[in-house]
Amino acid sequence: MAKVRALVLEKQHELGLREIDLPLEVGPGMVRIAIHTVGVCGSDVHYYTHGRIGPFVVDAPMVLGHEAAGTVVEVGEGVGHLKVGDRVCMEPGIPDPNSRASRLGIYNVDPVVRFWATPPIHGVLTAEVVHPANYTFKLPDHVSFAEGAMVEPFAVGMQAATKARITPGDTAVVLGAGPIGTMVALAALAGGCARVIVADLAQPKLDIAAQYQGIIPVNIRETKLVEKVAELTEGWGADVVFECSGSPRAWETIMDLPRPGGCIVVVGLPVEPTKVDIAAASTKELRIENVFRYAHQYDRAIALIASGKVDLKPLISETFAFEDSKAAFDRAVEARPDDVKLQIRVAT
Amino acid sequence: MAKVRALVLEKQHELGLREIDLPLEVGPGMVRIAIHTVGVCGSDVHYYTHGRIGPFVVDAPMVLGHEAAGTVVEVGEGVGHLKVGDRVCMEPGIPDPNSRASRLGIYNVDPVVRFWATPPIHGVLTAEVVHPANYTFKLPDHVSFAEGAMVEPFAVGMQAATKARITPGDTAVVLGAGPIGTMVALAALAGGCARVIVADLAQPKLDIAAQYQGIIPVNIRETKLVEKVAELTEGWGADVVFECSGSPRAWETIMDLPRPGGCIVVVGLPVEPTKVDIAAASTKELRIENVFRYAHQYDRAIALIASGKVDLKPLISETFAFEDSKAAFDRAVEARPDDVKLQIRVAT
Amino acid sequence: MAKVRALVLEKQHELGLREIDLPLEVGPGMVRIAIHTVGVCGSDVHYYTHGRIGPFVVDAPMVLGHEAAGTVVEVGEGVGHLKVGDRVCMEPGIPDPNSRASRLGIYNVDPVVRFWATPPIHGVLTAEVVHPANYTFKLPDHVSFAEGAMVEPFAVGMQAATKARITPGDTAVVLGAGPIGTMVALAALAGGCARVIVADLAQPKLDIAAQYQGIIPVNIRETKLVEKVAELTEGWGADVVFECSGSPRAWETIMDLPRPGGCIVVVGLPVEPTKVDIAAASTKELRIENVFRYAHQYDRAIALIASGKVDLKPLISETFAFEDSKAAFDRAVEARPDDVKLQIRVAT
Amino acid sequence: MAKVRALVLEKQHELGLREIDLPLEVGPGMVRIAIHTVGVCGSDVHYYTHGRIGPFVVDAPMVLGHEAAGTVVEVGEGVGHLKVGDRVCMEPGIPDPNSRASRLGIYNVDPVVRFWATPPIHGVLTAEVVHPANYTFKLPDHVSFAEGAMVEPFAVGMQAATKARITPGDTAVVLGAGPIGTMVALAALAGGCARVIVADLAQPKLDIAAQYQGIIPVNIRETKLVEKVAELTEGWGADVVFECSGSPRAWETIMDLPRPGGCIVVVGLPVEPTKVDIAAASTKELRIENVFRYAHQYDRAIALIASGKVDLKPLISETFAFEDSKAAFDRAVEARPDDVKLQIRVAT
Repeated sequence: MAKVRALVLEKQHELGLREIDLPLEVGPGMVRIAIHTVGVCGSDVHYYTHGRIGPFVVDAPMVLGHEAAGTVVEVGEGVGHLKVGDRVCMEPGIPDPNSRASRLGIYNVDPVVRFWATPPIHGVLTAEVVHPANYTFKLPDHVSFAEGAMVEPFAVGMQAATKARITPGDTAVVLGAGPIGTMVALAALAGGCARVIVADLAQPKLDIAAQYQGIIPVNIRETKLVEKVAELTEGWGADVVFECSGSPRAWETIMDLPRPGGCIVVVGLPVEPTKVDIAAASTKELRIENVFRYAHQYDRAIALIASGKVDLKPLISETFAFEDSKAAFDRAVEARPDDVKLQIRVAT
Repeated sequence: MAKVRALVLEKQHELGLREIDLPLEVGPGMVRIAIHTVGVCGSDVHYYTHGRIGPFVVDAPMVLGHEAAGTVVEVGEGVGHLKVGDRVCMEPGIPDPNSRASRLGIYNVDPVVRFWATPPIHGVLTAEVVHPANYTFKLPDHVSFAEGAMVEPFAVGMQAATKARITPGDTAVVLGAGPIGTMVALAALAGGCARVIVADLAQPKLDIAAQYQGIIPVNIRETKLVEKVAELTEGWGADVVFECSGSPRAWETIMDLPRPGGCIVVVGLPVEPTKVDIAAASTKELRIENVFRYAHQYDRAIALIASGKVDLKPLISETFAFEDSKAAFDRAVEARPDDVKLQIRVAT
Repeated sequence: MAKVRALVLEKQHELGLREIDLPLEVGPGMVRIAIHTVGVCGSDVHYYTHGRIGPFVVDAPMVLGHEAAGTVVEVGEGVGHLKVGDRVCMEPGIPDPNSRASRLGIYNVDPVVRFWATPPIHGVLTAEVVHPANYTFKLPDHVSFAEGAMVEPFAVGMQAATKARITPGDTAVVLGAGPIGTMVALAALAGGCARVIVADLAQPKLDIAAQYQGIIPVNIRETKLVEKVAELTEGWGADVVFECSGSPRAWETIMDLPRPGGCIVVVGLPVEPTKVDIAAASTKELRIENVFRYAHQYDRAIALIASGKVDLKPLISETFAFEDSKAAFDRAVEARPDDVKLQIRVAT
Repeated sequence: MAKVRALVLEKQHELGLREIDLPLEVGPGMVRIAIHTVGVCGSDVHYYTHGRIGPFVVDAPMVLGHEAAGTVVEVGEGVGHLKVGDRVCMEPGIPDPNSRASRLGIYNVDPVVRFWATPPIHGVLTAEVVHPANYTFKLPDHVSFAEGAMVEPFAVGMQAATKARITPGDTAVVLGAGPIGTMVALAALAGGCARVIVADLAQPKLDIAAQYQGIIPVNIRETKLVEKVAELTEGWGADVVFECSGSPRAWETIMDLPRPGGCIVVVGLPVEPTKVDIAAASTKELRIENVFRYAHQYDRAIALIASGKVDLKPLISETFAFEDSKAAFDRAVEARPDDVKLQIRVAT
């Protein structure tokens, strides 16, 4: 155990920036990383404001943060692809490599996965962390730490785009222009869609998404989405609809959006079981895909950022110093409509 | 127009066996078929008892029946693969070959498809019918007319098995042991599953399904299905779950049945929008497929019957003479739990 | 029959710009189009220089050209999506909509397809043509005729990218930087690849491809391709390799390029049966896909051009007046390494 | 190290049944198994007669055998699904669970896989072996050790059937009725094919395959295969062609067998690069899949055997006592046309 400075959620509503004991010994196949930048995620904020997410309850002090980039400072035995000084970002979930799910290549649905900042596992708003080299990814020189810390939320978009099985030139709809909806829209464009219709009620969110070529914003306060989709597709419907709002209301009319034989990818989760028009899904013979975190997306996400196909920098709304972490969380609680991603710079 | 004898649904609750005017001219690409055997489908019975199915209302006399086999008696210009005397069965839905859906190969979701015995289109409980040769399929010598008339409901099972994208050796669950559930179970076995767990409340239905090797019947009055599936799969879950009950209650626990990364194929349709536990579907990253009738299944279904891999004969519960058609329908209304399929022999 | 001015291949080596009788009556479902721009394709040039391509022999005068855009001047009965004045481009192949292949949605492999400028079918280097509306596609206002005439070769690239089943963020290799290789590279990028390594011997071709972000040119006179791919992929290999050179030599080392479980898409065709290292393909358990023209790609190709994701304009090397058609063909015969696409402007 | 009795290939042409030192310590996640039955594989015989297979050279004494079943006699720490006394069969290849291929779920193409009886790794024609529990599979009570030892070669057939992505009701062709061709044919039938046309020159091999319902034997000395396939498919072609002969001659006409848009699965490997008619593959837009051993097939194979869908017992031609191992190999060298699988019963 070593003492390191960390942002600790002591209990609901109470954040402390203090020293905490964390295990930092570097075993075989592991690396130690000096954290540089960490993004603030909606789940971090939710633990802060609610003290729990579903069955996961914060009943002991827990370090927050799971969207991280940093620098390798020590390399364990048997690690081939990383060396001290490498700039990296990390997957926050560590599955059991011998579980049935992992062996099938779908480690994200391994029920025993350990995920940063999900009780009782500590997160990485801290000076250093030890992590399996297999889940640690080198950043190219021209990709910044700030972009590296964006790979985690972008990987969710990548998983959604992958599950959609996009055919090159598809037309997609994204319901919800929050951080995840925007990530999904960018991944869908990079992943082969010709255009992505993004729908939301909040104009500032739509304005941010509309900066990107290929995104068609639709403010559903003003425009009937079904009519807009029909107009843009000659009445045929969208090839793929990504549900990213998590709102039960989205499910009331979602079946009108896809084309016959089209696909719905569910990213946003309603808290309660939600009424779904199964008969309408049947008439169009839709495929409905569900997304849970991501698997095998980090290297692909980094490749898209590195090649210039995806630019996440405009989505970083503000960066806070580590000492101002509490201010970062309080700003996140405000949920300003033009804030996409707030980041904390841990390194000095 | 020609006068032919037919079973006519005059209006709700009123069947007439009488002459009716039907167009029997054989245009290019068409064949005329003398009907031999017609199966009684739940939808025929529903029009009889309710006078409508959803938006389809019987507001003029309509010939019933759409599961048919017969003999070609006239062949139109340009028909290559059929000749007079061929024993055949027919797809009841005729799409527009130039529609967008048809051109993509998914003619079953063509919105303008014309389907037998769906108002205002007449069915085929009649002496003769004219049909496109493209949707008319030759029966091998050793496949009977009775089996030929079973191809239509079996094609629904085939469509479900195809949508599931079965990996050879999969374990499936079928919810509901009615005629469609049983067809789905047989198609899933023929289509690559090692075993199919069929669940129902009615023991007579389960007893019929249990005749087939590979089917494991589960009476859910006595046995907890989730526990049985867990026991048979070492706690992993089923690769595919076919929902064939149409019951909203099935959706309350369905997410407990598939394995992580598994699939649900929806065949049975609840009348109303139904509560679905989307968060549970997400955690397992399930794929949900919907089925609407079938496309490109008749030749495959006939091949499986002809090769002996699928034996549908035990599912024919009783055969009525054409003159006794009304008795057949009244028997169908009884819904005896050990009746799977009732057929009417039109030919004398 | 009507008399129209056309570029006629009288016989091998002999082009004539003259009047010819063509059927221009507009039947149901058809449109008449005034041709604006036509691209010169390698196959047109090959008929000119060799008088044949494989079994297709020019033994009667034939109008050349099949990459065309123009304006609708007459609309047949039953055509819904087009009107007089619409700017359009056209698929050159017309399948039988009732063939088995067409009904399955794979009309490109229908053996009876009729394809422009493939003996004995006339092409469209002519003032006007009549074509099925189903294979005629409206161009958005901001897409030029010149770009419209590029849709045909780009559709080949789209078919290759579709067959590859790209996962978002894939790394691809394209062998051969000729017109088709370049189209494939652009389609692969638009279709989800993060980066495309394009290999050729001719530096001018590579320079043209290298204008596009995401393309990594490799001159195989100077650089060992296998080593470059290994370096860029940490020794793992490319996810997809597109063979676009048609050279038997490419097959000598192609198996070293893809990753284990990767894919080869064959676009270029060696004239003779070619030695393939099947054991090497097996060890990596490769999937090999073949491409024959395209199906269902025109609307997708147009959508990608219209959204700005794909810019084909830099690939138009020079445009000739209709009167200078022979000069265009003679220039094409030169095969200058920095010529990608030559076009002929038929409209005045 | 422990001394155990084993069948040792001392060098080319020289077998010894003697004691040898093998590591039998049971580490965490491992089990120790008393071997009961081992099948003789063509590769074992090839090492015996040639002393090598390609780059794998027997330059030190090596225990033969990799198709094995037995009984668990010791269980290591952390093993959950197995206990002493369990009857099991084992996958012979052990990959690195942390390799890139393994993490993707395609561990069979992991280049560092260690495979029994592939120099320098010892095989299992020995009294006991220690093996990872993850690659050890429990046999149901009614599946014999002899069937358990057949799972390995059947898994190759399963991999081929899985790669084919069979649509239920497909028609397949298998080229070559040797042990692997027969296994592939049975897996294809169990995996969803309606019928499998098996082609060979040797009538005794065809007679064995023809015992199974759904298999159509074709002796290519007497019958032209292309014509037979055309006749059975109305001129359309087979949905899937499995190449299991390994003969370069098979490649001369193979492209005539599949339907447009069909698939070839390559199981048999020619020793040298082989001439392939790439242009013909293109015209039909074929998909060509390659197979390398298997991944994730053992549990599926056992499920199919256990449910009665697949009966491998008729393929066991003769069983030898361990003491008669040399006789078993000499019989295998004879390559009698009616021998499918010879087995050695190690347990007494």
